[in-house]
This record gives sequence, C-alpha cells and structure tokens, in this order.
Amino acid sequence: MLFNKIAIVGTGLIGGSIALALKEKQLARIVIGVSRHKESLILARKLGAIDSGSQDINIIKDADLVILATPVTTIIKSACRISKILKPECIICDVGSTKEQIVSKLTPLIPHFVGCHPLSGSEKKGIKNAFAGLFKNSLCILTPVKNTDNKALTKVKKLWVNLGAKVITMNPKFHDQVLSFVSHLPHLVSFALINSISPSYFRFSASSLKDTTRIAASDSGLWLDIFFSNRDNILRAAQIFEQRVSAIKEALAKKDKKLLRRILTKAKNNRKRLD
Amino acid sequence: MLFNKIAIVGTGLIGGSIALALKEKQLARIVIGVSRHKESLILARKLGAIDSGSQDINIIKDADLVILATPVTTIIKSACRISKILKPECIICDVGSTKEQIVSKLTPLIPHFVGCHPLSGSEKKGIKNAFAGLFKNSLCILTPVKNTDNKALTKVKKLWVNLGAKVITMNPKFHDQVLSFVSHLPHLVSFALINSISPSYFRFSASSLKDTTRIAASDSGLWLDIFFSNRDNILRAAQIFEQRVSAIKEALAKKDKKLLRRILTKAKNNRKRLD
Repeated sequence: MLFNKIAIVGTGLIGGSIALALKEKQLARIVIGVSRHKESLILARKLGAIDSGSQDINIIKDADLVILATPVTTIIKSACRISKILKPECIICDVGSTKEQIVSKLTPLIPHFVGCHPLSGSEKKGIKNAFAGLFKNSLCILTPVKNTDNKALTKVKKLWVNLGAKVITMNPKFHDQVLSFVSHLPHLVSFALINSISPSYFRFSASSLKDTTRIAASDSGLWLDIFFSNRDNILRAAQIFEQRVSAIKEALAKKDKKLLRRILTKAKNNRKRLD
Repeated sequence: MLFNKIAIVGTGLIGGSIALALKEKQLARIVIGVSRHKESLILARKLGAIDSGSQDINIIKDADLVILATPVTTIIKSACRISKILKPECIICDVGSTKEQIVSKLTPLIPHFVGCHPLSGSEKKGIKNAFAGLFKNSLCILTPVKNTDNKALTKVKKLWVNLGAKVITMNPKFHDQVLSFVSHLPHLVSFALINSISPSYFRFSASSLKDTTRIAASDSGLWLDIFFSNRDNILRAAQIFEQRVSAIKEALAKKDKKLLRRILTKAKNNRKRLD
C-alpha cells in the first residue's frame, strides 16, 4: 500500500475518479471523502469510491495524504483551514487547473505540499460522471518549487503513475503560461463561439459546431475561478488569438487568396502535429 | 430503381460516399465516376463505388442524374462545361457548402438543376475515407428557387431520403447566412486557434484543444473556396464573434466576476440546447 489513509476533499468528477482508482488499484487502506454536498458523499460511498465521508473537514486529521480536488479558489481556502489540523508528516496535493497562485500560497503554509494538475477534466462534472480510468494515459503535471519537500514529491509522483498518468514536472509560472494557451484559450474561444450564434440556427448545425463548442458546456463556477486565477496569461493568449482572427478576416476582406491559403495550410499542418 | 445511370463528378469523400450508398441501396442501375485524379477512380472502382470511371467529362452524356461533388468553384466550372453535353431531361444536383453563387449561376443554365448541401463533411478527405453510411441521420439542405423544376426537386429529395438524410429546404441566401454561423465560423475560429499556439506547447494539450481544433485539419483548398464564396456572411459572423471574445476579455480585465459568470452561464445553457 502506498498510503494508509487518503482523504479526498471534493468528491466531484476528479476527486471521485481518484477515489475510484485508489480503490480499484488498492493504493490506500482507507479512502475518506469530504464534500459540502451530502448527496455527493452518499453517491461516492454507494459507488465504493470512499469508505466513509463527511461534510466536516475535521475527519481528515489523521490522513497520510490529503488530495484537494475542489475548484481553484476553494483549494486555497480549504488548504488554509486544514493546515492547522493535519498530522505534521501528512502530504497534501491538489488538482487545480492553475498553479502559480496555489503553489505560492500553499508551499510556505504546508511543509509537504505538492502542486499537481491532471489534464483529464471534462465538460461533465460530479461524482456521477467519475470513473477509475479517467487518468489512464493522461498527462499529469507536477509543479515543484525550490521549497517543495523531495520525499513528498516522490510519493505523489508514484501515486499519479499508479493511477495511470504520464507524469511531467514544470515550474508553476510556465505551467500557467502553457495552460493559458492549450486549455484556457480553447475554453474562452468555445464560450465566445457558442454565444455568437442564434439558437434558432442550432438545428442546422453539424459536427463542426458541436466539436468546437463541446467544452462550452463546462461548469461556469469552475471556469470563472480558472479565468481569474490565470487572468494575465489568458488575456495575453486571447490577444494573440484575436490577431489570428484578424489576419483571416483581412485576407478575406482584401480578397488575398494566396495569403488565406497560406494561413489555412499552416493551420492544417499545425493541427496534424497535435495528433 | 430511382435512376438508370448516375454520374458522380468528383469521387472524393462526399462523391465516393454517395456512390457507395447508391450501390448499397441499389438506387441506380449504373454509377459512373469522373475525377481529375486517376488514382481516385481506380480506388472507387476497387471499392465497388462505381461501375466505371473516366477523367473525361464526356462519359456523363447519357446520365439521368449528375451529382457535382467537387469544391465550390469547380462545381460552377464543371457545370458550365457539362451543360452542353447533357441529355435534355438530365437532372443535376451538387453538394457544395455554399449555395447562393452556385444556384444563381446554374439555375438559368441547366433546366433541371437542384442545389443541395449534405451537412456531413469531415476534416478527412478522399475516396479512402468514404463510407456508405456518411449521410445516415445527417441533415441535407435543398435550396430550390422560383425557377427550380419541381419534378427534379422531388426526385432529388427522394434520392437524399434514400441515402439516409433528413431533408429540409431553404432559400440559398438564408442557407449561406445560417451556414456562415454554424459551419464556416467554427472553421475560421478553429484555424485561428491552432495558429495562436506555439507547436512546442502541443505536447501539453488535452482533449479540449484537440476537439476545438479537429476541423482545422480540413482541406485548405476546399475551405479557401467556401470562404471566398460566402465572404460577406463570414465577415459579418466573424465580427459578431470578435465582439463576444472582447466581452469576455473586458469582463476579465475589469475583474467583473458577475458579468463573466453571466457570459459563461449563457454559453453553457446555449451549448446544452445544441445536443
């Protein structure tokens, strides 16, 4: 067993999937869950994801590992609260989509904190959509800094590998910059795109609109948090995106076929490198 | 049999899939193919999509139905050429993604012309990706005008229903306006999005970027044609989209959480109506 007792704070899609995978792969003797939502805890128990659950954060006090799996701003708030009740040797990690704010606030506060970001979200949410295989073959970015405890880092890395993820490390600042482009910008674009189209046209749409806007159905609260916790990077990424849109518009307005062909060919070639 | 001899001009993804479906459902006694690309004809024959093929357009002269399945500008050029060699009672239809230009040019030229647009493209191209089920449960928009021959319209409608499509009719002008939003804008956005991101970041991407940019791998020539044949509508749609991007940027820049939450919630609710 990698851990004796693991506590998961936030038994939603990610937290619930971690819990299910921990049980399936027998990585902890006991898995407990904390959630503000009683129904979520009841369902998590029913699904066999957790051994017991509570709305009271105090149940985590003898855990060996605490995984914070709530939205970004709640992660910081919960961490501040639980830092006072943890066992001194307890390891804490999170699953937040942005890392600079979280890591800079929690590293001085919690000796064994390790910032993590499993890239395996979905537009779906809640324990009802959780499944043990969510992390299989996905990427998990760990963001250690100078003061990160090395033993904690090694154990957390082992945990994610055991959950099926490919683990890489990156500094929090670079993480937030990269993610502003590969994840936050696509979400921003998808929100803007669906809001550009009259719903009366929806019935004439094919797969192109469905695919490009799938993630626009993502949880608003979660994304509000992500947008505000990575504000500057996202604003910069959006600006670059606006320039690319302008370039297409200009080529079209000026009837510059050669230029537009060059832009479309570049897009096609870039997209092929993504597969 | 719905038709005796059907000629398909352009044996690519759409033309090839039509041919395969015609054969599978035995909707024509003979299916012939015309293509500029010899290999495409050879593969179409091998797959049983066509009975014979030629690079010479003259083989269509005794066909009862000609389906123009080439990119938009080529449709107009081919139609002008074949209008001189068709049997007088021959029906012609096309599968072009924009309709106003095509219908206004071809209706006076060809007595039995019917504009069609099956919404079942893909970022993949060529006969090698064709399959008989491509039109199953998809939408096919027919765009008859005042001078469209009614008997031809009825037969073409029957054809698409037999291919598995749900057929609706719309005037060409409205078609191009609707499609500029539900199809052409998502493509424009997808091209711009992938071109905004440094390929060195691609390895850190998850499904959100992949889904939103899947269609950026679409054929450049085909989309160049579509963009230029629906230029004004696309420029207008892009402008509205830019306003939606600006609105998100502004809410973020001004730290207006309430406004941003409203925008994201609207996007989420709109997207849910699309399913």
